[in-house]
Amino acid sequence: MSELVTRFRRLWAELVPIGRRKEGGYDRFAWGEADAELRSWFHSEAAARGLAFEQDRNGNLWAWWGHDPSDGPPRAGSIAAGSHLDSVPGGGAYDGPLGVVSAFLALDELRGAGHVPQRPIAVVAFTEEEGARFGVACLGSRLSVGELDPARARALRDASGVSLADAMRAAGADPAMIGEDGVRLSRLAAFIEVHVEQGRFLEAEGAPIGVATGIWPHGRWRLRFGGEPDHAGTAALGERRDPVLPFAETVLAARDAAHVHGGLATVGRAVLHPNATNAVAASVEAWLDARARHEPVLESIVADVVARAESAAARHGVTLAQFEESRTAAVAFDVALRRRVVDAVGVGVPEIETGAGHDAGVLAAKVPTAMLFVRNPSGVSHSPAERADEVDCVEGVRALTRVLAVLSA
Amino acid sequence: MSELVTRFRRLWAELVPIGRRKEGGYDRFAWGEADAELRSWFHSEAAARGLAFEQDRNGNLWAWWGHDPSDGPPRAGSIAAGSHLDSVPGGGAYDGPLGVVSAFLALDELRGAGHVPQRPIAVVAFTEEEGARFGVACLGSRLSVGELDPARARALRDASGVSLADAMRAAGADPAMIGEDGVRLSRLAAFIEVHVEQGRFLEAEGAPIGVATGIWPHGRWRLRFGGEPDHAGTAALGERRDPVLPFAETVLAARDAAHVHGGLATVGRAVLHPNATNAVAASVEAWLDARARHEPVLESIVADVVARAESAAARHGVTLAQFEESRTAAVAFDVALRRRVVDAVGVGVPEIETGAGHDAGVLAAKVPTAMLFVRNPSGVSHSPAERADEVDCVEGVRALTRVLAVLSA
Repeated sequence: MSELVTRFRRLWAELVPIGRRKEGGYDRFAWGEADAELRSWFHSEAAARGLAFEQDRNGNLWAWWGHDPSDGPPRAGSIAAGSHLDSVPGGGAYDGPLGVVSAFLALDELRGAGHVPQRPIAVVAFTEEEGARFGVACLGSRLSVGELDPARARALRDASGVSLADAMRAAGADPAMIGEDGVRLSRLAAFIEVHVEQGRFLEAEGAPIGVATGIWPHGRWRLRFGGEPDHAGTAALGERRDPVLPFAETVLAARDAAHVHGGLATVGRAVLHPNATNAVAASVEAWLDARARHEPVLESIVADVVARAESAAARHGVTLAQFEESRTAAVAFDVALRRRVVDAVGVGVPEIETGAGHDAGVLAAKVPTAMLFVRNPSGVSHSPAERADEVDCVEGVRALTRVLAVLSA
Repeated sequence: MSELVTRFRRLWAELVPIGRRKEGGYDRFAWGEADAELRSWFHSEAAARGLAFEQDRNGNLWAWWGHDPSDGPPRAGSIAAGSHLDSVPGGGAYDGPLGVVSAFLALDELRGAGHVPQRPIAVVAFTEEEGARFGVACLGSRLSVGELDPARARALRDASGVSLADAMRAAGADPAMIGEDGVRLSRLAAFIEVHVEQGRFLEAEGAPIGVATGIWPHGRWRLRFGGEPDHAGTAALGERRDPVLPFAETVLAARDAAHVHGGLATVGRAVLHPNATNAVAASVEAWLDARARHEPVLESIVADVVARAESAAARHGVTLAQFEESRTAAVAFDVALRRRVVDAVGVGVPEIETGAGHDAGVLAAKVPTAMLFVRNPSGVSHSPAERADEVDCVEGVRALTRVLAVLSA
């Protein structure tokens, strides 16, 4: 067995127990207990390699080779590789951590081979990429690029009502500091994110590794159906204003619209109030996740769903309020960087687009970014069934090593 | 203003703040904090009247006139009146408490008029009538009649995983004692429950008071849709096993079936897992509440809903498991008692049936029971909008007073 495989196993084994549910799947939420363990793990890995550790103003973690953060921002032309360590509720093991582990191991490979980088290289782990706790995906990278107002971010609340500001303070971070990190980002010449594929494209191609071309435009919309609470055993059907009925029609409308227009639309989150068996509900809050290859297709899907929701709500005497919670335009990764990545990984590597948002997509607004995908035999992600074969993960590390070697030469 | 109105206002005002949400509506759940305040209120009202207080083995509260619980069970031919003090989440003020307050005030009226009862009379408040905390409606009365296995009851858990046994212990009650209370019930010649109407029948009739004829057969079914969690941004529509879709079809099927067969069917409670915006859900648990005038109609409604749920689940590659959580046969209140009640209240009082379960319906298996409904102008219940005019509430007390005078003569 190669030394790289041994090292991969060791790092992976350290992460396996953190935030793991007894029945499988991970709960790793920003600024929570598991998150503290993950931050501590990152810190230890940096220290073990003599890399300079830094937690930036937005809580993102950096481990620098060839740069000392106490000297100020890195110099222009620096390189970063990484991903995130948080998960969706009950998420898989690979989505995020694979990119951070791959970056640490790629640095080991470069150093083991005697490579002398001509510019600083950082391993980075961004905070709250999944938006699982505070509802805004890519929270850490969005704050850094200045795409999210710090005051709005501080006021975000989790499901138990804890604000981001309080959660950060409880974890020993200073929420007053969050916000745009322009100087740092301006010094980065490239950010490379290795990520498990969240579909079966590479599996079908028979390829262990792919290079991303871009990310579909996507967004999240919150729909609030307001009815009239009543007794399920006595309120006549004709006198009800039951918000669950137009909600149900909207769920089906989302699938129809995605099918008709050729995109994706999902309702995977909804909360009924008061959520009592023998009560006609007072209200339903539901979230629509929609994505499509092109902006106009996305618009058509969302317009269809909202129109169906409005007509169903009106038919049932239910009010409907809608909020766009987040919206991300299409991302085309930097073409010049992508060419260099493809050349480094090897001609013929598949180039693929994705419907999933990533920190690399957010950073692309300010930094040339690229992504490498690792084959996922199940195609499934955000689930305990998400997986990648060890041999493919190691192939991903080797690909990233070649890319970093070229970029830092 | 009559002295009765003054006393009604005083008792009502004492209850108003207990378990009240800032935005209106009540959270009064069995064995919780608000419940402890309500028990303490009941105790004080008993003490203020020189009535003997007793909390029975199932946590139901009794205040006796003409009986001392330390002498053992009441003598045969005793009479009880009351209802419950708990609420659904965000429930109204009247559902339950009106019956308990009316019973205390009716005793005051009888004593003020110098009435000398020939048999003991109790005011009673049953525990967890709504089933809002532990999921079984009429928990206290079901235990007393022996309709619910004590071991099963002790193991019931609330939404945070606390068992009934632990909740009772935390409130200073002994869960080892719960179970059938046959001797006590065998000594009751009548139980009379005053309750706010949960519909607009009396409003339409222009009558302040009605007498119940019976309760529709009804039940609660839990449906569990099991899918495959996945990423909402990458999983192709055709490869998804999304449990939210057959759940949504089932919600609509319930309304259709209720309409077609002429009954009631409601989905007011559902929980999605993991309930994340950007994840195709792993599973949905949903509860069906169904009711109908006649048993075969109820059967047809439930059969239709389950058939539609099964076919939708199969179409989406989703598993479906179903559980009958509770089932209550039709109740026809004791005919002889009902005639005496109607005669006492006044000829011409409307007689009505209801789709709502009540402790009176459960006790009917062992005790002659009757119900008096008080007009509800909104027709709404299980909601902050539930209401009854004070003048009608007082009319309810007067009617109950006449009934208790006749029954205890």
